[in-house]
Amino acid sequence: MKSELLGTDEILLPAGFRAAGVRAGIKKREVKDLALLVSDTPATVAGVFTTNQVNAAPVKLCRERLTGGTARAVVINSGNANACTGADGLADARRMATVTAEALGVPDETVFVCSTGHIGARLPMDVVEAGVRHAAQKVSATGGRDAAEAIMTTDIRVKHWTVKFQVDGKPVVLSGIAKGAGMIEPNMATMLAFVMTDAAVDQAALQKALAAAVNQSFNRITVDGDQSTNDTVLLLANGQAGHEAALNEDHPAWPDFIAALNEVTLQLALKIVEDGEGANKRITIIVEGAESDADADKAARAVANSFLVKTSWAGVYPNWGRVMDAIGYAKARVDEDKVDIWYDEHHAAHQGLATGIPLETLKAVIEQTRFTIRINLNLGEGRAVVYTCEITEEYVRINVT
Amino acid sequence: MKSELLGTDEILLPAGFRAAGVRAGIKKREVKDLALLVSDTPATVAGVFTTNQVNAAPVKLCRERLTGGTARAVVINSGNANACTGADGLADARRMATVTAEALGVPDETVFVCSTGHIGARLPMDVVEAGVRHAAQKVSATGGRDAAEAIMTTDIRVKHWTVKFQVDGKPVVLSGIAKGAGMIEPNMATMLAFVMTDAAVDQAALQKALAAAVNQSFNRITVDGDQSTNDTVLLLANGQAGHEAALNEDHPAWPDFIAALNEVTLQLALKIVEDGEGANKRITIIVEGAESDADADKAARAVANSFLVKTSWAGVYPNWGRVMDAIGYAKARVDEDKVDIWYDEHHAAHQGLATGIPLETLKAVIEQTRFTIRINLNLGEGRAVVYTCEITEEYVRINVT
Repeated sequence: MKSELLGTDEILLPAGFRAAGVRAGIKKREVKDLALLVSDTPATVAGVFTTNQVNAAPVKLCRERLTGGTARAVVINSGNANACTGADGLADARRMATVTAEALGVPDETVFVCSTGHIGARLPMDVVEAGVRHAAQKVSATGGRDAAEAIMTTDIRVKHWTVKFQVDGKPVVLSGIAKGAGMIEPNMATMLAFVMTDAAVDQAALQKALAAAVNQSFNRITVDGDQSTNDTVLLLANGQAGHEAALNEDHPAWPDFIAALNEVTLQLALKIVEDGEGANKRITIIVEGAESDADADKAARAVANSFLVKTSWAGVYPNWGRVMDAIGYAKARVDEDKVDIWYDEHHAAHQGLATGIPLETLKAVIEQTRFTIRINLNLGEGRAVVYTCEITEEYVRINVT
Repeated sequence: MKSELLGTDEILLPAGFRAAGVRAGIKKREVKDLALLVSDTPATVAGVFTTNQVNAAPVKLCRERLTGGTARAVVINSGNANACTGADGLADARRMATVTAEALGVPDETVFVCSTGHIGARLPMDVVEAGVRHAAQKVSATGGRDAAEAIMTTDIRVKHWTVKFQVDGKPVVLSGIAKGAGMIEPNMATMLAFVMTDAAVDQAALQKALAAAVNQSFNRITVDGDQSTNDTVLLLANGQAGHEAALNEDHPAWPDFIAALNEVTLQLALKIVEDGEGANKRITIIVEGAESDADADKAARAVANSFLVKTSWAGVYPNWGRVMDAIGYAKARVDEDKVDIWYDEHHAAHQGLATGIPLETLKAVIEQTRFTIRINLNLGEGRAVVYTCEITEEYVRINVT
């Protein structure tokens, strides 16, 4: 299996997929704000959505359409979340699908819809509809980058990842694009990700694989502890690679498919953390020795979401006491006299006490753009990993409006 | 009952209480960092402490001494939390008490100890001991303000409140001082508060009254969602007001005592929110119509702790959609089609949808230094109130070191 980042200029779409990204006029800024992903043939589709009880109209529509199991297109707008818009908002989402279906000549119920942006306002449907028709004319095998740009909101960087592997000697491509930079928390956040493959995959196996992939990727990142109303990950598999039997758990190439899917989703998730609003660092929090994996997860998230810990990283202030404080209020069992903490390989605290390691050594760790804080609770076998970033004054500047 | 704020120059101590605040040299800055509160006669004492599983040596010592039920003195240092310091730290806390007891000529076990500041380093015991002896020589009936200054860390303002009332025709004074500006969350935070009264109160009744008072005051505020290792509220009642029977639930003056205690603790709590690190606003979040009071509390805290909501207040950006998002991920039942939101008296959302009220009207509300966001979930009778502040770039600047 060969994974590759093809540079920022090009996104390799799997066979039989086309894409476009255009400026419809939903955002005030003159940037692309409407994307279209199209499969030339019916693709099996899997989806994972926000767990927020307040969820956007397009999320409701996608959940409904997922029961059909087949997708031909995904239409996505940025600049407006179409959330908290009630029955009118749901009608707008349906209308987006219908206009897309008509423009592409595909069945209405095979069109999926996603939105991201401000909450609480109706979509400007006139510009959305014109944008969809424009995008439908522009879709091409080289339109992936335009699509990835059009789904961005506060993102600075375009996010994509591609893995190639083989099934029955046939080359298979699995490519993903994503957006997300803030409001990123456990169980996803204001994030959208779209993964496409030309493998053929049974729908039930595809859904199961996606749920597992999301759990080891998008559900392991946190920027600010806020969960969004619009999170969606869709995975489309159209079979255009031409291998024989469709993939499922019994196929010999299944482990390769899972590895490819896990890699693409994890890389996209890490790119979201690295593009965290106002952030420059990617920090890996590992908690081990917890009473259970669930306890380890709670402790890791308490550290990753503590604003006192996150601001201390921004200030290159290696305050392991704030880490102790955070695990102490996590809803996980902690015995302060048993806790060990490492900054990369440097032992900062042993049995809950300072090891006496020079502050300068720890400072050198958190001056890096990537480092790991490892915590051993020394209570059991539970383990969890969470990826996060620091919080800077820039984060506040970005979010005051 | 007469409540009064005596200005920043003077803090009225109840009869038989003396106080001092001195510079011991624990902090690098040349400011006061050690306080002493003394009762001339044995006072009944009640205490409420942090729920953090990682808790400081002085918290452990106070919990132990509370079983004795009697206090003669409280010694408090700022600049060092004496947390994550193990057995040595506990010995340091005991030594602080012993030195205080010797300097004042009171029994060792009646001295309570509190610390606040950085976590993980040993106290500089030489300067602490000298500071205690110095403070013991300086205690006076007019030393309350010096004590209130000496317990400050990132606080900008001295925090105190006094209420006067009568028992059996005798004047009674109830006075409190507090510190706290960040790391402020449910179930207290890096906050210390000391309440003194010359009323005589039965110890069991005193403890019950304090627990209830803390629940309606310090447990209703949140600055940043971080809980500290050192939170302590102590209440000392020395009986020097000279009324006849000690107060308890059966005494006719009990309601007056409770009202005074609730007022002093609530006012101190509000002063902590108003002094929130980098903050200028005090926001009251009211959630009503929840399925239960516990659900209302969860929803109110989700809003109060959402950094996207808090930064939008800093930017005077009345984004009710972020409020909807936050209650949606709260672990409380929410039906988005039933939610109403008001900014002061202005109806921003009805049944989960924009009411169409002009943005300028909502902006005018959050431009104020005090305003209320009221949310009705329209599901039941549950209700909760939480007090919080906005998050500014200044908060990040304060906490990067």
